[in-house]
Amino acid sequence: MTVLEQMGEKAKKAAQFLSIATKEQKNKALESMASSLLDNMPSILKANAQDIQNAKEAGIKESLIDRLLLSESRIQDMSKGILDVSNLEDPIGEVLNDYTRPNGLHIQKIRVPMGVIGIIYEARPNVTSDAAALCLKSGNATILRGGKEAIASNKAIEAALRAGLKDADFPEDCVQLVQDTSRESANEMMHLNGYLSVLIPRGGAGLIQSVVKNATVPVIETGIGNCHVYVDKAADPAMATAIIVNAKVSRPSVCNAAETLLVHKDIAPTVLPVMAKALKENHVEIRGDKPILDILGEGNPATEEDWATEYGDYILAVKIVSSLDEAIDHITRYGTGHSECIVTADDSAAKEFTARIDAAAVYVNASTRFTDGGEFGMGAEIGISTQKLHARGPMGLPELTSYKYIVTGNGQIR
Amino acid sequence: MTVLEQMGEKAKKAAQFLSIATKEQKNKALESMASSLLDNMPSILKANAQDIQNAKEAGIKESLIDRLLLSESRIQDMSKGILDVSNLEDPIGEVLNDYTRPNGLHIQKIRVPMGVIGIIYEARPNVTSDAAALCLKSGNATILRGGKEAIASNKAIEAALRAGLKDADFPEDCVQLVQDTSRESANEMMHLNGYLSVLIPRGGAGLIQSVVKNATVPVIETGIGNCHVYVDKAADPAMATAIIVNAKVSRPSVCNAAETLLVHKDIAPTVLPVMAKALKENHVEIRGDKPILDILGEGNPATEEDWATEYGDYILAVKIVSSLDEAIDHITRYGTGHSECIVTADDSAAKEFTARIDAAAVYVNASTRFTDGGEFGMGAEIGISTQKLHARGPMGLPELTSYKYIVTGNGQIR
Repeated sequence: MTVLEQMGEKAKKAAQFLSIATKEQKNKALESMASSLLDNMPSILKANAQDIQNAKEAGIKESLIDRLLLSESRIQDMSKGILDVSNLEDPIGEVLNDYTRPNGLHIQKIRVPMGVIGIIYEARPNVTSDAAALCLKSGNATILRGGKEAIASNKAIEAALRAGLKDADFPEDCVQLVQDTSRESANEMMHLNGYLSVLIPRGGAGLIQSVVKNATVPVIETGIGNCHVYVDKAADPAMATAIIVNAKVSRPSVCNAAETLLVHKDIAPTVLPVMAKALKENHVEIRGDKPILDILGEGNPATEEDWATEYGDYILAVKIVSSLDEAIDHITRYGTGHSECIVTADDSAAKEFTARIDAAAVYVNASTRFTDGGEFGMGAEIGISTQKLHARGPMGLPELTSYKYIVTGNGQIR
Repeated sequence: MTVLEQMGEKAKKAAQFLSIATKEQKNKALESMASSLLDNMPSILKANAQDIQNAKEAGIKESLIDRLLLSESRIQDMSKGILDVSNLEDPIGEVLNDYTRPNGLHIQKIRVPMGVIGIIYEARPNVTSDAAALCLKSGNATILRGGKEAIASNKAIEAALRAGLKDADFPEDCVQLVQDTSRESANEMMHLNGYLSVLIPRGGAGLIQSVVKNATVPVIETGIGNCHVYVDKAADPAMATAIIVNAKVSRPSVCNAAETLLVHKDIAPTVLPVMAKALKENHVEIRGDKPILDILGEGNPATEEDWATEYGDYILAVKIVSSLDEAIDHITRYGTGHSECIVTADDSAAKEFTARIDAAAVYVNASTRFTDGGEFGMGAEIGISTQKLHARGPMGLPELTSYKYIVTGNGQIR
């Protein structure tokens, strides 16, 4: 048995315990984990300092080092995050269906945990506590594999979380961190069939694509967002401008930020100059097709590649379309099924757009930035699914569960 | 682009059409497909005769030839099966959730099709029309890959189904059959990422394991059932006997048949001889551990392998357990998460069993044979999922769908 298979066995055992733990027990364990993070702050900060030093010596860029960096206040936030999860509603045990068949069989469909959830992520140590808490609250054991740059921090956080579990009389193996951060350990995790109920990658496009392309365990694909805002001919120009500016610049690095603006040709001459001015004031580079550049008298030309790119930056591709159909076709071709928006005062255009666009979240007259567990009212989220199997869009606690049928009879045979 | 990628492109196009087809349009197409099967009976029978001749020449065993064989009445049944599916409730468009956030955003969670569903199956030509109908009714395009022994029959059935689609003004590519039945085509289908929303294997353990172990597209694992009946010390002996006989012999080859009987030691001396007699009358071979053979004075010894085997035959492994705990541990170790049963008059034992057993369907005082879409009241089913992601247990039309969020605002930004 490999190290990961041994971890898988331990996780399955812990998952059996968790599957019948009560809401009160789980909340007590989460409170204990939250306290333990605070109690172990010195060792976590010390480990983090080592990661930061290694990262600087390795010449890792500043924005990544910032994600890796922990401070007293960041650890307090992580601890508070665990308490927030403990306050969410427990999804386990919910009766999803309850009926009696003509032969007298009583069938109940009951929400149960998935079992063992694997998470592969990059060098963000806060994901370690965040994912562990969401999985535990939903009755699942976790096997976590973070990026190698954060390994010392992650080990210290794992130790604190496990100490918290132990104090609450929970099996420590409810939370396990993969100590080996080589490419081989990630690859083995993708093939840990029989142990992982699901594997969720959290991170950039490269990581997610690698997991999706290689994994033979069940996977939930998350987070790649080439999102569009389509400004219909019946759009309110001021609303359209406010939405595209917000969707592009409020947080350009995240997956629900807009990457391409599509504008109906009839409204383009009036609305585009206004939008371009507002975007320019917000330091956004416009890459447009020829008619755009003609209208604006400036900007850089867009290539085929621009339509397919998730910039994650202050860059926006802009295209003029001659109809709603053309807008839908463009989005169908280049979209990643994340978040798509139409701005229009025309109800029938809105209806056609929402019916035909195949994405997790389709917006009418609102920013794509709302695709988020918190904004959807779910509390915390573990990620945003861009696949159609199991869960789509923001994934909260219910999306980390499965169900089973309990069938009660009095001797029925078939 | 490979042939399969081209089929994938065509299927995605057809799926766009299907995603907005109305219930009435889809039902008309299904009726047309059902008629077309009858209209094309001569060509289907002729193709089938060729498959049968080839199978006989290849020395394929009689039970498999029977599954491959079509007749007028079997084609009529296939046609009627399509009409039955047309009469099921259309799951698409169902509003799963509808709420308004404090900022005025109106969020609707709406049931939508998966998109393109791949099915890999063995030499059962009826699956071709059956799967095509269920997928079409749920708004999905299908790519079907049947076993090589049935290729001529499948081609004739596909041609009939596509002719029916054409008559109803539906894209013929709603249903496509992979013409190449080599191992390579199956393998390519398992890696058709970006085209298949999900791949469902239907068939024996070898096929399913091959798909689960190799596929990088989302998969729903179906059908392997090493099912147990546990006779608790508080069981009614007559009920327990009726249930184990039914679970074992009513159809031994199917996945919801029982494979192992566990009997509590306190009740074994009285109940086992009665059960053994009833099983013997039904031609069932008992493989038992030593205490079983001691009580019965006959039977064959069970090995470790017996506990893990899905016989699919008139063979039953039997074991004495000293407690409910031991029964649960045995099932947790050897079960495949399909269907598990306790026979008991003790409510607390029943409650503990249903809480702790991790399976799609957990029975109290009823035969495991009820795990079936029809018996659960779903109408037809496409298979029985033994995984926890997306769907568990019998899968009807709703299990072939996903959802999307439609978010309507009046200019909200974040």
